[in-house]
Amino acid sequence: MTAYRTLDIEGWRAYLASTPDLASRLGGRSEGWQLREVSDGNLNNVFLVSGPLGGLCCKQSLPHVRVDPDWKMPLTRTDFEARYMRAVAPHVGHLMPALYHFDPDLHLLAMESLTPHRVLRGALATGVAAAGFSARIGEYVGRAAFLTSWRARPFEAVTEQVAAFAANTTLTRITVDLVLTAPYRAGCKRNHWLSPELDDIVGELQSDPQLASAVSRLQERFLTAPQALLHGDLHTGSIMVDGDDVRVIDGEFALYGPIGFDAGLYVGNLLLHAAANPGRLDWMCDEIETFWRHFERNYRTLWSERGRSGDIGALLDDSGQQQAQVAACHAIMKDLTGFAGLEMIRRTIGYAQVSDYDARPNRAERAEAMREALMQGRALILHAGRTETPGALLDLITL
Amino acid sequence: MTAYRTLDIEGWRAYLASTPDLASRLGGRSEGWQLREVSDGNLNNVFLVSGPLGGLCCKQSLPHVRVDPDWKMPLTRTDFEARYMRAVAPHVGHLMPALYHFDPDLHLLAMESLTPHRVLRGALATGVAAAGFSARIGEYVGRAAFLTSWRARPFEAVTEQVAAFAANTTLTRITVDLVLTAPYRAGCKRNHWLSPELDDIVGELQSDPQLASAVSRLQERFLTAPQALLHGDLHTGSIMVDGDDVRVIDGEFALYGPIGFDAGLYVGNLLLHAAANPGRLDWMCDEIETFWRHFERNYRTLWSERGRSGDIGALLDDSGQQQAQVAACHAIMKDLTGFAGLEMIRRTIGYAQVSDYDARPNRAERAEAMREALMQGRALILHAGRTETPGALLDLITL
Ligand SMILES: Nc1ncnc2c1ncn2[C@@H]1O[C@H](COP(=O)(O)OP(=O)(O)OP(=O)(O)O)[C@@H](O)[C@H]1O
Ligand SMILES: Nc1ncnc2c1ncn2[C@@H]1O[C@H](COP(=O)(O)OP(=O)(O)OP(=O)(O)O)[C@@H](O)[C@H]1O
Ligand SMILES: [Mg+2]
Ligand SMILES: [Mg+2]
Repeated sequence: MTAYRTLDIEGWRAYLASTPDLASRLGGRSEGWQLREVSDGNLNNVFLVSGPLGGLCCKQSLPHVRVDPDWKMPLTRTDFEARYMRAVAPHVGHLMPALYHFDPDLHLLAMESLTPHRVLRGALATGVAAAGFSARIGEYVGRAAFLTSWRARPFEAVTEQVAAFAANTTLTRITVDLVLTAPYRAGCKRNHWLSPELDDIVGELQSDPQLASAVSRLQERFLTAPQALLHGDLHTGSIMVDGDDVRVIDGEFALYGPIGFDAGLYVGNLLLHAAANPGRLDWMCDEIETFWRHFERNYRTLWSERGRSGDIGALLDDSGQQQAQVAACHAIMKDLTGFAGLEMIRRTIGYAQVSDYDARPNRAERAEAMREALMQGRALILHAGRTETPGALLDLITL
Repeated sequence: MTAYRTLDIEGWRAYLASTPDLASRLGGRSEGWQLREVSDGNLNNVFLVSGPLGGLCCKQSLPHVRVDPDWKMPLTRTDFEARYMRAVAPHVGHLMPALYHFDPDLHLLAMESLTPHRVLRGALATGVAAAGFSARIGEYVGRAAFLTSWRARPFEAVTEQVAAFAANTTLTRITVDLVLTAPYRAGCKRNHWLSPELDDIVGELQSDPQLASAVSRLQERFLTAPQALLHGDLHTGSIMVDGDDVRVIDGEFALYGPIGFDAGLYVGNLLLHAAANPGRLDWMCDEIETFWRHFERNYRTLWSERGRSGDIGALLDDSGQQQAQVAACHAIMKDLTGFAGLEMIRRTIGYAQVSDYDARPNRAERAEAMREALMQGRALILHAGRTETPGALLDLITL
């Protein structure tokens, strides 16, 4: 057992040189490897390494939040990221970077380096994202959700994973606080917003008993509906694209939960992008429909093929299975709608906001885009319980 | 660490004598202690011991099902029973025997000996049960359910228990197979019934696609709705009574699940008793209403007092809390109704049946009572989704 230490560039060079599997992927002599830090998230250190034969992406947890050293945090988040990648790779391998190495002592992992991929949020901002990327995300969510669910596997295999990811409390606490609670609490110091422009609507969101009731139902869904293994943080910053090669990264928030949570975070981020870029509303609506179509096709096809391998639904005949699929998709869309609304609100007034709003040319227009996102978010949350189709969802946005 | 061995009467005498805490509860010299076996369930060995100062109830897991030595089974069931007792004792202590001792090597436990209590199923059969016992069971379920739930405790405390009980796969497998699946599967060898009298209705139950769909929804509820820590096997054989002293025993099936599962198994057993004793239908309906009234009162009172201590519902104001309570009780009643129906069917045609039917004086009347229970069970399962009150539940039985 090696004592934990945070690796800097030379630390990584030495570590990789002494790890034959990784060194041989890079090739050549370690002095010649190129290393550069690409950490751009809040939590971890990330380095890209390249050698004559290939590249690696190297990620390590710190004993604190990267961007806030006073916020102490246990080191286990890469442990959960590695566990998540191993759990879903057999189902979605081609849509994720390959995991090459995990070191539980140093809490680091090494994976396939995605080049020349760009983070989707940035690719959208700079206009290099190719329309239709959502097809791959729909496929990803549909496959991961079905194949980690109770319909595909004996319950013993599922509860083992439920229990393992139940220990991911540090990052789940962040979701519970920052997504599901803080934005609706007046006076919570972790919120911030464009003030005074948004003061009135923030005040409304934080004193609306109907909204609080709907948010409470989503809290309950998040914590008490372990339908499938979730990514847990599936926003446009957790996706990298290169043309039609689309990959999901950063699964450290993984846990069992409602399928609509992953889907809703993703859709919420598309809607945030549309709010910040009104000229792209139609495009983003197309992406949402594409996402859902591919999600539903993958989820239902796998269910029809393998839906009697688990302990839920093994008694259903073909027509019972079809009916159950329709009901399940309606229920997932309800959850999706609510969680998309939560994401829009928390990314506009909560602790961790999105850069999409930088597309607005000035403060007044930014405020207007944010207000639009807040109102849409509220509508999604309040109407989630009767939103069963992508059409009904988009009506809430465009009507 | 002591190697496991199954203790017989003299083995227990020596074990208790060498365990000062337990020996001192009995008092006197070990040669004078009276031990007798009272095992009457399917799974474990149980002995009652008495000495000059007091008594003990001693329970030990066997490496197989007690009544079927060919059915091998891991020894951990007393481990889960002890863990369950420790988890709920702070909430319902006065409604459970006190746990004095647990030995993880020998997989045995020693608890308060309940004398002169009788098992409720037997007390009902012999006519010594005092009407109104269901008030205490309602209190038990209401308190245990609320105080182990996400509304009463930070999610970290709950997920720790969810994970621990997720390992209780051996007994959960029994529930999944024998309660939730096998009775609806034609040709499954674990089913048996009064034949040929019930052949026709069993054939109907096993070839009804609508029923299979409703059963599948209950499978999904059981496995994917970890609302609270459940007893997991709350039938009238898991309750002991002495006048109005009512105690719940035998929590080895414990797991996190839907609150309506515990409530539904209990109500299902009251309805089985009524089916087998038509003259007692009114009494059993009263017990069900009493159960529900006390369940609801305890559950809602605790929620009102302590419902902002957890991560679900902390944002609700008083009136939001009241509304959420009403909705939660309706949802629990739906689950209750479905699970009560499953229990009635599996206890009539499944592996482990109930002795209540012995009250019928002859085979023809027994068949009639069983048919009645099967039809009621089916009605409960099919109508569960729209049954929100005890009145609606009882209408399904008595109309
Ligand atoms: N496999 C990869 N190949 C290439 N670059 C990558 C890869 N994984 C991550 N990156 C780059 O590193 C950045 C940070 O990675 P990641 O989002 O996983 O870190 P994080 O600290 O967990 O972020 P967050 O705060 O969002 O949780 C990404 O935005 C991306 O630019
Ligand atoms: N605390 C107690 N005090 C007195 N008698 C008890 C006590 N606990 C159990 N008994 C007696 O022992 C019997 C068997 O106990 P219990 O139901 O816990 O065993 P089991 O083998 O787990 O049964 P099952 O097969 O139903 O799971 C009970 O029916 C009851 O008669
Ligand atoms: Mg991350
Ligand atoms: Mg038992």
